Amino acid sequence: MRAARYYGPGDVRVEEVPEPETRKGQVKIKLVCGSDLHAFHAPFPESITPTLTNPHYVTGETLPVTLGHEFSGIITEVGEGVDTGRLSKGQNVVVEPLISCRENGCGPCSADHRNVCPHASFLGLAGWGGGLAEYITVDERLVFPLPLNTPLDVGAMIEPLAVAWHAINRSAFKEGANCLVIGSGPIGLMTLKALQARGAKWIGVSEPSDQRRGMAVEQQASAVFDPRTQDVVAEVFKATGGQGADVVFDCAGVQPSLDLAAKAVRPRGNITIVAIWTKPAILNMNDITFKEFTMTGIIGYDHVHAELLEAVAAGKFTGLEKFITKKIKLEDVVEEGIKVLMNDKEQIKILVHP
Amino acid sequence: MRAARYYGPGDVRVEEVPEPETRKGQVKIKLVCGSDLHAFHAPFPESITPTLTNPHYVTGETLPVTLGHEFSGIITEVGEGVDTGRLSKGQNVVVEPLISCRENGCGPCSADHRNVCPHASFLGLAGWGGGLAEYITVDERLVFPLPLNTPLDVGAMIEPLAVAWHAINRSAFKEGANCLVIGSGPIGLMTLKALQARGAKWIGVSEPSDQRRGMAVEQQASAVFDPRTQDVVAEVFKATGGQGADVVFDCAGVQPSLDLAAKAVRPRGNITIVAIWTKPAILNMNDITFKEFTMTGIIGYDHVHAELLEAVAAGKFTGLEKFITKKIKLEDVVEEGIKVLMNDKEQIKILVHP
Ligand SMILES: [Zn+2]
Ligand SMILES: [Zn+2]
Repeated sequence: MRAARYYGPGDVRVEEVPEPETRKGQVKIKLVCGSDLHAFHAPFPESITPTLTNPHYVTGETLPVTLGHEFSGIITEVGEGVDTGRLSKGQNVVVEPLISCRENGCGPCSADHRNVCPHASFLGLAGWGGGLAEYITVDERLVFPLPLNTPLDVGAMIEPLAVAWHAINRSAFKEGANCLVIGSGPIGLMTLKALQARGAKWIGVSEPSDQRRGMAVEQQASAVFDPRTQDVVAEVFKATGGQGADVVFDCAGVQPSLDLAAKAVRPRGNITIVAIWTKPAILNMNDITFKEFTMTGIIGYDHVHAELLEAVAAGKFTGLEKFITKKIKLEDVVEEGIKVLMNDKEQIKILVHP
Repeated sequence: MRAARYYGPGDVRVEEVPEPETRKGQVKIKLVCGSDLHAFHAPFPESITPTLTNPHYVTGETLPVTLGHEFSGIITEVGEGVDTGRLSKGQNVVVEPLISCRENGCGPCSADHRNVCPHASFLGLAGWGGGLAEYITVDERLVFPLPLNTPLDVGAMIEPLAVAWHAINRSAFKEGANCLVIGSGPIGLMTLKALQARGAKWIGVSEPSDQRRGMAVEQQASAVFDPRTQDVVAEVFKATGGQGADVVFDCAGVQPSLDLAAKAVRPRGNITIVAIWTKPAILNMNDITFKEFTMTGIIGYDHVHAELLEAVAAGKFTGLEKFITKKIKLEDVVEEGIKVLMNDKEQIKILVHP
């Protein structure tokens, strides 16, 4: 079968690989929609992706690995021992692509906080196949039926939505909270949608790019600010009766976003870092001291897919299909996908149809 | 009466001032023990101390103000309307010296989070008298009876102990937790004592000063490390079965303490910043992301004195009297107090007897 294979930063090749076999406790999925081309330029630590010579601790695989951890598809084969009441042939499904060591001595794995296992990674980055291929086989515990009211296209966005859902779980968010989302790239927009689904009272978005601000407007943020021309802190205080934001979500990962967060958050509020930062940050410690705010880190998700898919089935999300700004074929993944995403900020999610 | 008056950083004078009058709802306290000479060199923001020309928002006073927010004494006069079932003449008491704006529009004051009011400060720093004088008059709601089993000397340490107690309340600490305390100066030692009183399973202390490490040993920390010669991260992991510390308390406020905290904390653990930092910090954001730890800021305390004094009455603290390393008279507060504390790391608390 064909698969997009990751050989290292900047090097993805579509090539022929053997079709995977369905083992005991697994299902085989015919992949219909994949995404997450944005991930591939990030400098991943070795706990996430192996190298050409050092195998990944959990999968034992070295590069190349098949790319793609945001995907949906149809079950074509059900392995021995799988709960056929839950998963059956022909069913539309999504996958929680979380890999961890699952060793007894591992604190996070024993506490079922798999995403902070020191060896945690993802299908599509660490081995065991990925979503940018024709087929993948996956352990049944990671496979979730897609609600009947949800197209497979939208199913490919459940994974990034799970990141936002998990971030909200880890944050100090409560229904009715006033929130500020800093950055409305893909993860900022997913955070906006998840906050709407969970009953935020007010959601402000700060974003310097005109195109991305337009998307936050289209997705019905309560207010959208341009930090280049507006005093976002003053606007947040005005919108919240002088109190400041209960929770600020940093979805930009740059110094000005942390500076803004520290000023815009209310006393005893919370700043949740959703973005992956590429540089260390400078934190004015007197801000955290005198305001007694908390900061929360998050990576990926852990056991949120079931809860999130229930909310999707209940119709709590609208407009997700607008995030699909382009559809391409697997063989065009580099030229029409990765390279376009790098340069065109109007693109949110480019879907790949293997 | 005599009082130690603060004219600005480095300028404290003992001089004659009028004795305060006991107003409605107040008690007059004859001050017996005062401390907190350590505070006086810190560069306080204007929300804490007024200047010679700008009055404090809440007290309306300009410099000089009477110094001292850690103190104990004996009630000598009970004002009109005071609940005499709770407070009576001759009683030993301590004070929660917290000042805030108490305005209806103030979010923190309305939520009864007085210490994060933008105008929050302390008796002894913002005006309305202080502990380094012969008398003070205080609103009854801020006055708490000292348990009968507790000498007035120890009573003067209830205030810094309240900072530690509050820090633990705000942190993710739970009974049985493994904790690391970074820095065993006065506030680190108070944190150690409060953690012992609250049933921590293991309390490691990291401190470069030989003298201060000695005090942590004397106060029965589970383990005491010298970061100059020991790999503290490795020691913490060894002591916690490879998991890392559940909660790290930064009581040092310098870059190496934050670096150590980020490495020593377990995944999904908590770092609570107890120290007042004088410089911004550099935070490796990938640490907070991949470990999903939380950071918590604290300043002072808020509604913890009653709970803390119950624990004191129940005998949950031992050895507090060892923190009193010197006793002086009010007129010697500069030469024998402030100047000694600056240079002698063996001093923890110098008590002033007005
Ligand atoms: Zn693990
Ligand atoms: Zn206030």
